[in-house]
Amino acid sequence: MDVIRKRRSIRRYERKEIDREALNRLLEAARLAPSAKNIQPWKLVVVIDDSLKRELARACLGQTFIRECSAVIVGVGDPSYKWHIVDTTIALEHIVLEAVELGLGTCWIGAFNESEVKRILGIPEDKKVVACLTVGYPAESPPPRPKKSIEELVCFNRYK
Amino acid sequence: MDVIRKRRSIRRYERKEIDREALNRLLEAARLAPSAKNIQPWKLVVVIDDSLKRELARACLGQTFIRECSAVIVGVGDPSYKWHIVDTTIALEHIVLEAVELGLGTCWIGAFNESEVKRILGIPEDKKVVACLTVGYPAESPPPRPKKSIEELVCFNRYK
Repeated sequence: MDVIRKRRSIRRYERKEIDREALNRLLEAARLAPSAKNIQPWKLVVVIDDSLKRELARACLGQTFIRECSAVIVGVGDPSYKWHIVDTTIALEHIVLEAVELGLGTCWIGAFNESEVKRILGIPEDKKVVACLTVGYPAESPPPRPKKSIEELVCFNRYK
Repeated sequence: MDVIRKRRSIRRYERKEIDREALNRLLEAARLAPSAKNIQPWKLVVVIDDSLKRELARACLGQTFIRECSAVIVGVGDPSYKWHIVDTTIALEHIVLEAVELGLGTCWIGAFNESEVKRILGIPEDKKVVACLTVGYPAESPPPRPKKSIEELVCFNRYK
């Protein structure tokens, strides 16, 4: 719960390479994610090359902060499995939460031109770019965002 | 990372009502989940009524263990928002991880007849049942499932 409470979407980063051991822990957190029928129909492309990050920032509709992070982690699902979006998402959120534990910051990136991202990273046509994460050393500490109340989000026994 | 490592899919439960304070913590963990543009396009239906749980077990293609859990949490997304599946999934996985911290067990349920689940719980036609979770007090401690290696799951800079 501490980690969940501390998590923020971080959009400003120190320009710094990611510590390799920290990165390994993030990837291990993803690897241990549950997956429908344990199929694990996903791959992660970890982009640390500066010129690729710049290209990705353009493909992510000009969100220039993407260039400044240490790594962009691109979650790629295999659409031949029904649960590929859910399974890829779970793995990415494990990274988000483990990052908090390690003092790293992340931001989910949903706005991107999928075919551009595929072209830049050589992702096959038949795969799906589910979402991207920026990862790096936070250079901001934003306050929590307002969230809906439990009453708005939860109902008991019957949908309301 | 401890929580991520300890997590298992639990399919046997003690027959016991869920502690209301624990349930509140699970729901709070979901509430704090990140969401594209902070829209939070989801609702959770928490099913604790025994006869509704029995009906749900049938709608979940006869997975009878669903009757034995303390609560079924049904994640409902609003398809008018592009990221409703991802956002609902993140919220549900926060519940899964917080449950580990509280000594509770969960299991993602992907196999269900969506229109039956909607009928049973009064979920509107235009909403999407993203997935369900069983939640309860574990009556089994399964070993970890085999996972793909980092080499199979991760590549650097270019898709391989």
